[in-house]
Amino acid sequence: MKTSYLLNILLAVALVILSVKIVYTGNTDDMNNEITTQQDQNIALENILTRSSVRAYTDQAISNEQIDTLMRAAMSAPTAVNKQPWQFLVITDRAILDSIASNFKNIHMAQHAPLAIVVCGDLDKALEGDAQSYWIQDCSAATENILLAAHGMGLGAVWCGIYPIQQRVDLLRDMLSIPSNLIPLNVIPVGYPKAPQNPKDKYDSARIHTNSFQ
Amino acid sequence: MKTSYLLNILLAVALVILSVKIVYTGNTDDMNNEITTQQDQNIALENILTRSSVRAYTDQAISNEQIDTLMRAAMSAPTAVNKQPWQFLVITDRAILDSIASNFKNIHMAQHAPLAIVVCGDLDKALEGDAQSYWIQDCSAATENILLAAHGMGLGAVWCGIYPIQQRVDLLRDMLSIPSNLIPLNVIPVGYPKAPQNPKDKYDSARIHTNSFQ
Repeated sequence: MKTSYLLNILLAVALVILSVKIVYTGNTDDMNNEITTQQDQNIALENILTRSSVRAYTDQAISNEQIDTLMRAAMSAPTAVNKQPWQFLVITDRAILDSIASNFKNIHMAQHAPLAIVVCGDLDKALEGDAQSYWIQDCSAATENILLAAHGMGLGAVWCGIYPIQQRVDLLRDMLSIPSNLIPLNVIPVGYPKAPQNPKDKYDSARIHTNSFQ
Repeated sequence: MKTSYLLNILLAVALVILSVKIVYTGNTDDMNNEITTQQDQNIALENILTRSSVRAYTDQAISNEQIDTLMRAAMSAPTAVNKQPWQFLVITDRAILDSIASNFKNIHMAQHAPLAIVVCGDLDKALEGDAQSYWIQDCSAATENILLAAHGMGLGAVWCGIYPIQQRVDLLRDMLSIPSNLIPLNVIPVGYPKAPQNPKDKYDSARIHTNSFQ
């Protein structure tokens, strides 16, 4: 009799604690800190490994907050000697997007994209001499960050090359009145993917050499 | 008697709270699906936003599995016309790492790194004509993927430029017997960070232009 009474108390206390815990925290995350860390690593890697070029988009608009996040990602890229030789043109104007789509065969998907970002190198901020063209590498890193951030946000994007094809550089410069100190590296249409994506498996162990090329 | 009655009520209430919670939200996994997705997005973005260049490492070795993951990340980058114009030299040999450190002022940190990766453009796989130099953009995207994957795995890395500085290209080519069709873009020392990192805040709203540069 006494034992069953004590058991009842214990049971009741345990259940109340559990209920409060589950109702108020909704999950058991803080019980699994180590696992969560491993999961975090997997998620960060998965985002890199599963990105693919997305060329078809739904009508869903992209918010200013989302655009700002893409820009923060872009400017988190490393740059040679921390020069940050970049400028970003965010295009949301339907007429401009359509005009890019109709003038550039390789950017036809802009016709259905709610957003495109033009990543430009800024020669006024670049290194000098032979090192000037590090802006290409810096802006490419920023571009990859935009693509990965978009994928991480459930958006899709595709890198459409402009530089070093001079004809494309000249045409885009004319269309968008791009100042002479800027060189457009690419145009990145962005939108919500129209269909699920299957990333290409491009892993090729033959491209990996250890300690020497022999 | 009265106390046990109250305990029974308490037990029942606790069980009802738990049941309602579970019935309305499904099992505990489902409970967190939405939040988990949002959390996943935040983790993927955080990984991009918090990466920094890491130049000091502990003695801890890097496993072959970790190296393989870095290579998978590298080859997940997009490339112009899917040419994948890249080759990767993985250096774990202490003598070679030390020799790079002593020959290149900008890669001194290789002296304490257990690993360095040389990202090379492969001209035999590159596009032709004006488009050939897209290998620089492709290999830069692969490099950024390596840096982000390293950060996501709790490692630290830093992008040490080689190309387009001809003197650096020639010296590294001689030291590592890099074939003539390959151009080393950079050397990336990798290791476990010796100290916690503070990522630079490089966000600058003045670099963002909307619809025009005016």
